[in-house]
Amino acid sequence: MFSFTITHRDGSARTGIISTSHGDIKTPAFIPVATKGTVKSLLPEQVEALGFDAILANTLHLHLQPGEAIVEKMGGLHSFSGWKKPLFTDSGGFQVFSLGEKRQVDDDGVTFTINGSPQRLTPESSMQIQRTLGADLIFAFDECLEKNADEATTKVSLARSHAWAVRSLAEFKILNSDGKQALYGIIQGGRFPELRAESARFISALDFEALAIGSIFGNPKTESLALVQPVMKILPEEKAKHLLGIGAVDDIFTYVELGLDTFDCVLPTRLARMGYAFIRPESGGKVENKFRLKMTAAFRDDGAPLDRHCACTVCTTFSRSYLWHLHKAKELSFYTLMTLHNLSFFSTLLEEIRGAIEKGEFVLLKKEWVERT
Amino acid sequence: MFSFTITHRDGSARTGIISTSHGDIKTPAFIPVATKGTVKSLLPEQVEALGFDAILANTLHLHLQPGEAIVEKMGGLHSFSGWKKPLFTDSGGFQVFSLGEKRQVDDDGVTFTINGSPQRLTPESSMQIQRTLGADLIFAFDECLEKNADEATTKVSLARSHAWAVRSLAEFKILNSDGKQALYGIIQGGRFPELRAESARFISALDFEALAIGSIFGNPKTESLALVQPVMKILPEEKAKHLLGIGAVDDIFTYVELGLDTFDCVLPTRLARMGYAFIRPESGGKVENKFRLKMTAAFRDDGAPLDRHCACTVCTTFSRSYLWHLHKAKELSFYTLMTLHNLSFFSTLLEEIRGAIEKGEFVLLKKEWVERT
Repeated sequence: MFSFTITHRDGSARTGIISTSHGDIKTPAFIPVATKGTVKSLLPEQVEALGFDAILANTLHLHLQPGEAIVEKMGGLHSFSGWKKPLFTDSGGFQVFSLGEKRQVDDDGVTFTINGSPQRLTPESSMQIQRTLGADLIFAFDECLEKNADEATTKVSLARSHAWAVRSLAEFKILNSDGKQALYGIIQGGRFPELRAESARFISALDFEALAIGSIFGNPKTESLALVQPVMKILPEEKAKHLLGIGAVDDIFTYVELGLDTFDCVLPTRLARMGYAFIRPESGGKVENKFRLKMTAAFRDDGAPLDRHCACTVCTTFSRSYLWHLHKAKELSFYTLMTLHNLSFFSTLLEEIRGAIEKGEFVLLKKEWVERT
Repeated sequence: MFSFTITHRDGSARTGIISTSHGDIKTPAFIPVATKGTVKSLLPEQVEALGFDAILANTLHLHLQPGEAIVEKMGGLHSFSGWKKPLFTDSGGFQVFSLGEKRQVDDDGVTFTINGSPQRLTPESSMQIQRTLGADLIFAFDECLEKNADEATTKVSLARSHAWAVRSLAEFKILNSDGKQALYGIIQGGRFPELRAESARFISALDFEALAIGSIFGNPKTESLALVQPVMKILPEEKAKHLLGIGAVDDIFTYVELGLDTFDCVLPTRLARMGYAFIRPESGGKVENKFRLKMTAAFRDDGAPLDRHCACTVCTTFSRSYLWHLHKAKELSFYTLMTLHNLSFFSTLLEEIRGAIEKGEFVLLKKEWVERT
């Protein structure tokens, strides 16, 4: 079962509800990444308590270890991981590109190695693995390219991704006769607006239940907005839309304004482990510093919380001094606390965005966040 | 404020309540170790939710980093660490012995180095540091010896530990004029029952609010029982008694039976991180296997929980297969989940022990746990 209902509109921005057999996702939503079936350093109950409705796990990682057969034997990824709410898996297309060595792409699929071990993924096998893992929301298998790939290369690749989209959908329809899963088609097209538009027309003409935009990089103001904007004008308004791998604060404002509904990104969790805390505008967070505060030795005797204007359990309980101490001591609880804070930042941000859209005040909120200096 | 009230007796075993200004400790109690001010891999709220009334932090570690002045500036160790309930610190005596390099003991104190940096602790400085850290329950500064130290060496050392006990107490009385903290005297005497008895007489004659037995090693049946038993006959019944660094399951039964009230040990947390799960007798835990199950590759596709007879959140949510996957993937949540399970095992064990004492059934419970084969 899958449905998407738009509940409020504010310009092109909208709130909505994605319904799955594991519950609802209030949109716009940030989806924390649980690469190997766990949001790094957190337990499922902690992720849920932060207010997240869904997480996204990586198909290739789980295929490599423990393997989808084990996950299936354990009752599927929900039961295996202890996450009871809606669950996404990606298709593996991006991970083949980012992790695969000796990649050889042919029209049927991709052959590559991981730590020397030979691997192959095709649209069909990606669908089969994702079916076996059992997430609610899954993605078509596509080809990802270098950010700066030229137009000729991108054209060839796009034709292939389109053929793979058709094959992904066909395989999905066979596997998903019970309607348990929903499949997202992915718009590609590199850095070429005309190819992006072509992809938007092609993918939206297919029978995908929801849509995603892949391979968007760079500063939204100067680079990626020009790629996403024409795509959004073509895609059917009523379908849920995911922006893959995006999660900077200004990105989220830019793309919510265009009508994107969900976002996944490793940034808040990865930066947490590296000692970066996200901070709100009231505490000096702005586009220029990417809303980030790097821990420094000045935290050593600083009794303030990470962010005075943050209401998360970390900021209401612990000082910068304690976090610095844990960081220096390499205590495991350091990673947990920083991750809790950063994910709380994004959970709260998206909650504020949904509230602003409901009140018709999205532009005002955007101004407060990304247009102050 | 400090008080200890015995609430039930069952032979020499007893239940009781240690009261501090941060709340009560129901005894017998296992006290998890929070070496550097955090129980490794857990947050304070998780430790509290497991049912623990108190934790124990290490004075020497906190003295070295961040230093007691920082902890004091942050409002003391409770506020710094986010642990709101009763808190112990040790004296540093054992850590000087286990971590100090180039140790030179003189009658006034100990000079040593840590990572090349020169350090010195005396009874007075240990009391001052512990006062500054601000735990509720603190320990006198003593000298710890090798397990196999000979009688002559032990005699000299014991005389020194006794002199240091007197000095610890004198310094404590100056610092603790507000009565916020309570000081435990420590019985030493190595592996010589007569020296242990001498120490018990000497320390119990001093004005300590509670008592502890230090440097107990080895199998309780064949080695350490003979050292603790005569001591317990000498110590005044009404005082709370702590056994330092002890926490094997059979140790706990042996010493609760003799009237010990509290125990601290890194075993459940350290073994958790190494992949050992504590298991109950119903699941095959026994003295011979130390109530431990080592994770193995056989867990890979094992859908059972760590312990079928354990009601902890880990065992009711996650399979051995998932834990093995997290272990292989070196995910931080692996350490958290294993620690939660192992500490839950000890929390439940001590709860069952208290319940058995209240019903006059301690010997029966001991039989079920440590006398089956």
